[in-house]
Amino acid sequence: MSAEASVRRAVVLVSGGLDSATCLAVAKQNGLLCHAISFDYGQRASSELDAAKAVVDSQNVDWHRIVHLDFGQIGGSALTDLKQPIPEHESEGIPVTYVPARNTLFLSYALAWAEVLEAEEIYIGVNARDYSGYPDCRPEFISAYENMANLATRAAVEGHGIRIRTPLIDLSKADIIKLGSSLGVDFSQTVSCYQADSAGQACGVCDSCRFRRNGFVDANIPDPTQYQERQ
Amino acid sequence: MSAEASVRRAVVLVSGGLDSATCLAVAKQNGLLCHAISFDYGQRASSELDAAKAVVDSQNVDWHRIVHLDFGQIGGSALTDLKQPIPEHESEGIPVTYVPARNTLFLSYALAWAEVLEAEEIYIGVNARDYSGYPDCRPEFISAYENMANLATRAAVEGHGIRIRTPLIDLSKADIIKLGSSLGVDFSQTVSCYQADSAGQACGVCDSCRFRRNGFVDANIPDPTQYQERQ
Repeated sequence: MSAEASVRRAVVLVSGGLDSATCLAVAKQNGLLCHAISFDYGQRASSELDAAKAVVDSQNVDWHRIVHLDFGQIGGSALTDLKQPIPEHESEGIPVTYVPARNTLFLSYALAWAEVLEAEEIYIGVNARDYSGYPDCRPEFISAYENMANLATRAAVEGHGIRIRTPLIDLSKADIIKLGSSLGVDFSQTVSCYQADSAGQACGVCDSCRFRRNGFVDANIPDPTQYQERQ
Repeated sequence: MSAEASVRRAVVLVSGGLDSATCLAVAKQNGLLCHAISFDYGQRASSELDAAKAVVDSQNVDWHRIVHLDFGQIGGSALTDLKQPIPEHESEGIPVTYVPARNTLFLSYALAWAEVLEAEEIYIGVNARDYSGYPDCRPEFISAYENMANLATRAAVEGHGIRIRTPLIDLSKADIIKLGSSLGVDFSQTVSCYQADSAGQACGVCDSCRFRRNGFVDANIPDPTQYQERQ
């Protein structure tokens, strides 16, 4: 691609949640021509991908790829391979939707697309504060990934480098909500709930819902989330 | 998985070529319980995957996963996205079968499977000598990938580490053939040719065929490759 000198491209991971919607808005605010990428890996909440599409549309991003991860089997039942089942795993109850090495895989598809696009930046809305339990949300993981990525492709080695941008990594949920609001993100389109129904209505009680609900309270911003009616 | 202390598992990348067949034999020789992984990304030579299956079978490996990469579109025509085609790319002639960030993606699926299996080692038959043009075949890439992998998953952070093994990285093609032969690899099952026909017969003239043919000559080992008859 004979990119004009003035055009800087970014690949932005968009899950349909509140964080990645804000991350996309930050990338746009930074003047990047954004290419959104989402992953279909058998999420329980199919409304997540619908939300990703709505977020990308509403932010006027012209490119959106939804990549199917051939992974339903590897997380959980997957060990039941061509020839020999490994039943111990089933009983440990790894959910079917579990995606091992999740951010590594997501970033690797983003890196592949960045190579083709000659994009110099990859944006990912990881957050090490509210979800500090995940190893692949930590700054040291991101830094190691970036280092690897700059050795992985000819473009990165010979041309511009690749930067992994994590604008939300140190922010609280309330700060993310404030930031997104200031950039005009329509949070009513986003789905954070792990058990959202097909209309995207949230359960209101799972961990993800609690973080989100408290975030709106702490940010002193009205919560536009549609919650399922509960008995 | 409550693995017995004595069982060490490895995920081994098997393409169906001569190098990965030898790499698998080395992993077995090293006493590892091997889990083979191959990738279906629209290879021109479909016989490559048939060869991968034959190699895995003949080495009595009980687990073999063939992962479909949703990537036909990103390499080349792929930029033609949901909304807006980017024709410049087509004219640059990136082949449809080109896989950007190839080894990064392959290793990331292997890492994901290693996480589920609690495997401590990933074997990949990269070689920095005959194919030194590829950035992601170099020792510094492998080292950076390993470093990243050890920050990416809970198993790697809290438990055993992950090692990326590249037993062929410094060997000449002749040395690889000698090593494979000494381990009983049946090279007649392997396909290295980019243009092999459906029966797995090699063209004999592409770069990959030349490296292979010269390797057998230099190793002073009879070449079992079936070549297509040419006028």
